[in-house]
Amino acid sequence: MLTLRTDTAERLAQLQELETPCALVDLDRLATNLDRMASYAVLHGLALRPHVKTHKSPRIAAEQLRLGAVGLTCATPRELEVMSDVSHDLLLAYPLLGDSKLKRVMNLPRSVRLTVGLDSMIAVDALGEAAEAADRDVEVLVEVDLGMHRVGVQSAAEALALALHIRSRPLLRFAGVMFYPGHIREHVQQQDQNLDRLRADVSDLIDVLRRGGVEARVVSGGSTPAAWRMHEVQGVTEVRPGTYVYNDRTTAALGACAWDDCAFTVLGTVVSTAVPGQAVVDCGAKALGREPMRGVEGEGFGALLDRPEVVVTRMSEEHGVLDLSASSWRPRVGELVRIVPNHVCIVVHLNDVIHGVRGDQVEASWPVAARGRT
Amino acid sequence: MLTLRTDTAERLAQLQELETPCALVDLDRLATNLDRMASYAVLHGLALRPHVKTHKSPRIAAEQLRLGAVGLTCATPRELEVMSDVSHDLLLAYPLLGDSKLKRVMNLPRSVRLTVGLDSMIAVDALGEAAEAADRDVEVLVEVDLGMHRVGVQSAAEALALALHIRSRPLLRFAGVMFYPGHIREHVQQQDQNLDRLRADVSDLIDVLRRGGVEARVVSGGSTPAAWRMHEVQGVTEVRPGTYVYNDRTTAALGACAWDDCAFTVLGTVVSTAVPGQAVVDCGAKALGREPMRGVEGEGFGALLDRPEVVVTRMSEEHGVLDLSASSWRPRVGELVRIVPNHVCIVVHLNDVIHGVRGDQVEASWPVAARGRT
Repeated sequence: MLTLRTDTAERLAQLQELETPCALVDLDRLATNLDRMASYAVLHGLALRPHVKTHKSPRIAAEQLRLGAVGLTCATPRELEVMSDVSHDLLLAYPLLGDSKLKRVMNLPRSVRLTVGLDSMIAVDALGEAAEAADRDVEVLVEVDLGMHRVGVQSAAEALALALHIRSRPLLRFAGVMFYPGHIREHVQQQDQNLDRLRADVSDLIDVLRRGGVEARVVSGGSTPAAWRMHEVQGVTEVRPGTYVYNDRTTAALGACAWDDCAFTVLGTVVSTAVPGQAVVDCGAKALGREPMRGVEGEGFGALLDRPEVVVTRMSEEHGVLDLSASSWRPRVGELVRIVPNHVCIVVHLNDVIHGVRGDQVEASWPVAARGRT
Repeated sequence: MLTLRTDTAERLAQLQELETPCALVDLDRLATNLDRMASYAVLHGLALRPHVKTHKSPRIAAEQLRLGAVGLTCATPRELEVMSDVSHDLLLAYPLLGDSKLKRVMNLPRSVRLTVGLDSMIAVDALGEAAEAADRDVEVLVEVDLGMHRVGVQSAAEALALALHIRSRPLLRFAGVMFYPGHIREHVQQQDQNLDRLRADVSDLIDVLRRGGVEARVVSGGSTPAAWRMHEVQGVTEVRPGTYVYNDRTTAALGACAWDDCAFTVLGTVVSTAVPGQAVVDCGAKALGREPMRGVEGEGFGALLDRPEVVVTRMSEEHGVLDLSASSWRPRVGELVRIVPNHVCIVVHLNDVIHGVRGDQVEASWPVAARGRT
């Protein structure tokens, strides 16, 4: 049972009392989502190291850890600092560069076992020097590009060279490799071809490293849409999904969750129905983010939870335009709506507080503690 | 001379000491931008009521007021609350709906002369009741749709009906009309046709109201690209530009400022050059926003200040991909870059602090005090 449920002792408010726009999480759906991924990982013997970028909340992270996560994945120094309160095993899945960031990360509590992912000799040297200055052991994962073409070394040979360079620095420990299969964004049922390629690449990578005398203890991969199939890729030891806690319109469209697994919505108020054929809500780009659907068809920037055919087709900063052409619903000015955003991680980053709800009852509110930079 | 210049007494830091990603404002360009719009308004006898959504900082607002702005325009209760510290003449250019928002706004200091823009009978009644409960006078502008098709009544006759309804509520005062010409997004030199239409509509609107016995004391219009031509629309008394303080890549492309008037940049660090033909910076959608160019051609989500041919073509949450194909520049991992975003208002909303710079010197830092909702 979800620990967050303990907050139910005191009923905080009714949905109608909240000020819009604000962020809501359905607590029962959250609990189900947390359970499902934890069970998947256990069942397939994969270590689960959830990415906190989606929720940025120690409270949700603590729940993930309680359900068996081995540690947490972070993208920023702020996320590391906040999450060091709840976990002593943190991966910074991001090259650590710049004096200020290096200093902050080296100042994490000594009890934290720190791992950093990177893809360049310069990043190895910067990290090695900082580790030596701080007299601190750091585990290192070499990031490999297996199709996303964002970051990551381009070949197994380059990975080996970087691994050997890591081993040459006194306080750095080569732990293994990581990749981000964010390019595998087909519907979950149609990922076969990309997975074939991934299987071959991972196998080759492990072989080349081994022949070079380097053992990849950790092979870390898996975003939310692809995580569900990572057990089919031999050699992968760990998954780092983020979005699965809340899910969103894109995740549902990709088949990586059902519409009824979307736990996160933005609560909005209809502020104008003056222009025929549309209703305007107080959720614009500053509340919903302007994220397109990716890897899947889908117009607009979000859809109503209870009327997914009603889509936010246009936005200004504080206005969202609901296209009513596919619906007979005609809202009244002042009516509340709940919008499932296209990409939940971006929306969480726009909020300072999340409200946990069951039906129309607000049962908990928690800060997005790792939002921002400092 | 810019009041912010007083901060120069103490040198805070060098650019190189800042942690990336972070938001920078060139103080000299800011001063020039503030002066230029203030001068335009004075020269043409237009009241300047800048929209604070762009900067969300009382410090910049105070400077706008010092240069002659008659008051400020806000979009949210938070903006009103924060700005009530520096101005006693505030326009909420947004329908005020929902008990929580109404209560907050009615609790603004009594010294604030409050004006609210709206477009529905429901919003008039909600505002009238709140004003009566708080025993507070409220000025009201009727929002009219003059081509943006977002909010606003659809005809002069509807505007008149709403004006008369406003006059029927004891504490509401009909002040005039407002429109947002956000649809006029051609290059400033090519706006003639849309302005012809606007001129006819404004003239008709004022006539219909007058014949109905209602005088529009205020006729408020003008976003940053169109503001520069509002003196050509007879009857307009006030402009509400926001973006002009900082400007952005879109504003420059629309000809509403020069590239060298772009005062706002996001400072980033190159974190990976592993994938050929590109460099990855630590400015993704959570630092730059995912805003397309609007009303003008332009790929990507931002461009380098000193190399506008280098564009952020792809983004993840914390990664921005610089396309190097149009440039011979090949950055090194760890190098700093300054990115002019497509839409600055969204980027400011992503930051808690802004750093004011001259060259490589950081001379001031100020909070984005009106960011967030509460």
